[in-house]
Amino acid sequence: MVLNKKNIPKVGFGLWKISQEDCAEAVYNAIKAGYRHLDSACDYGNEEQVGEGIKRAIDDGLCLREDLFVASKLWNSFHAKEHVELALQKSLDDLQLDYLDLYLVHFPIASKFVPIETRYPPEWIADPDADNPRVELAGVPLIETWQAMEAVCEKGLATQIGVCNYNTGLLHDLMSYAKIKPSMLQIESHPYLTQEKLIRLAKQYNIQVTAFSPLGALSYLELDMAGAAESVIEQNVVKQAASRTGKTPAQVVLRWGVQRGNAIIPKTSRPERLIENLDIFDFELSEQEMAAISALNIHRRFNDPGDFCEAAFNTFNPIYD
Amino acid sequence: MVLNKKNIPKVGFGLWKISQEDCAEAVYNAIKAGYRHLDSACDYGNEEQVGEGIKRAIDDGLCLREDLFVASKLWNSFHAKEHVELALQKSLDDLQLDYLDLYLVHFPIASKFVPIETRYPPEWIADPDADNPRVELAGVPLIETWQAMEAVCEKGLATQIGVCNYNTGLLHDLMSYAKIKPSMLQIESHPYLTQEKLIRLAKQYNIQVTAFSPLGALSYLELDMAGAAESVIEQNVVKQAASRTGKTPAQVVLRWGVQRGNAIIPKTSRPERLIENLDIFDFELSEQEMAAISALNIHRRFNDPGDFCEAAFNTFNPIYD
Repeated sequence: MVLNKKNIPKVGFGLWKISQEDCAEAVYNAIKAGYRHLDSACDYGNEEQVGEGIKRAIDDGLCLREDLFVASKLWNSFHAKEHVELALQKSLDDLQLDYLDLYLVHFPIASKFVPIETRYPPEWIADPDADNPRVELAGVPLIETWQAMEAVCEKGLATQIGVCNYNTGLLHDLMSYAKIKPSMLQIESHPYLTQEKLIRLAKQYNIQVTAFSPLGALSYLELDMAGAAESVIEQNVVKQAASRTGKTPAQVVLRWGVQRGNAIIPKTSRPERLIENLDIFDFELSEQEMAAISALNIHRRFNDPGDFCEAAFNTFNPIYD
Repeated sequence: MVLNKKNIPKVGFGLWKISQEDCAEAVYNAIKAGYRHLDSACDYGNEEQVGEGIKRAIDDGLCLREDLFVASKLWNSFHAKEHVELALQKSLDDLQLDYLDLYLVHFPIASKFVPIETRYPPEWIADPDADNPRVELAGVPLIETWQAMEAVCEKGLATQIGVCNYNTGLLHDLMSYAKIKPSMLQIESHPYLTQEKLIRLAKQYNIQVTAFSPLGALSYLELDMAGAAESVIEQNVVKQAASRTGKTPAQVVLRWGVQRGNAIIPKTSRPERLIENLDIFDFELSEQEMAAISALNIHRRFNDPGDFCEAAFNTFNPIYD
């Protein structure tokens, strides 16, 4: 099987936090609205429903499989070489696909294996019924995981492979041992966390970048991981650019994301937002507007599993500092 | 040869930026002043002179070899498995020692090998005579380097091994493959760069921490890498603690460093400063003073080889972001 490496569509549909109930419909609507890039993951707990949505869209003739760019992610508990293909195959089965366009290492940290039969997705903790559930690390080196990623790529189960949440130090190391180079780095990035150095290094290594949470705090309000006051769309420079261009503040922030050369994966369940988020290719931000939005950077990271795991599972587990 | 793993003396003498002319005398004076921990490195370009100073001090009966805790560091260009022992042996020859108390990986990045005969220390660039000298990376995985570090440790050439300038992501990965665990992490840390998460993770992994540049900007004024206005000893909380305790502001900042549980390696060539920097064990900062000094943190990193290599060698090479 020879598969073409597709170019990633610049705006993808992010599937994190979409409930199982809403997910098949949301995916169907996204494809109908024109999305061709779906950002899925074992850990999001909704890949069966994503698969249903894809199947219905293809069955209804909205698109062909080969029109879609479907990404999924290897969860932490499947980092050992004997588990990578198992995990990928489970995602393929749930998604009703025979290959992924992109398979990503979700986090640069390996946790204890949990058999699929026992609990799926396993999430962060090894045993939720323990008196004091904690994250248990597995001690699997990232080089072992990457070599297993290369093996599934060679097998054609994923056309491209990449990583999420790696920093510059980890990226240098990965590039030193990768035989199949990562084609994608997925990281949190928005105007409050611009990550210039990391993105520039990735591009110097010919690695594309996908920014998750491209609207910043908006993704985290529902999780109580951010305050509404932190919303970037309330910033004057954003509102001014919106008023100049006749677009919404959210569209301005998303446009800033793609115009700096990244793919972005906004999430929404609302049909009108689906269309709004995709509709950012008929205008351009000026150099001044781009710079002013970039200058909002305050190194604000909303998604830090170190903080999250400490709060939820009493396990101190930072990966970015 | 069975060597005891010594406890690291909390205040070491940092040898970075001490000129060859001054170095033997400075080391001799440091040992005379009571220093027993010397922080050396291939890259500092003065290990022969450090060795002279140590020899003179031992010959004069100021101390025995076994009273000293001597650390040195593997330079970036010696990361390949066939070069680690070579580099360590060169440091031992220059230092006139037959073992180190601690050998550290200097940076988590491998640059192109330069034979010792060609140029020593090789510094950041492969060829200083090139029209456009650049840093050339060597693509040696950190796991290969660590395994070679373990081999020299097993051979008794270094009693303990560790790393410098690793972040949390790299530390997790290192711990996943280390058979001999790192006993030390050396990082930049001072009140403007407190690095709480990284230090806490290191200690969770039973890795001790040495803070370099414990006085912050003071180390960088002479290199034009910091402005005098950035000096932490001008801060009111520091001055107030100094006035309460009858110590100097610098002693307060150094005391804060050791009182939070780290070793520190201040550098000075001035004999009166040598004594001042060591004289921080007859007073204690209050919890409030400790917290107020920690609250000065502004994530200000003075020593970033990414920035440095870009300015000096047109090579973008970040490792922390």
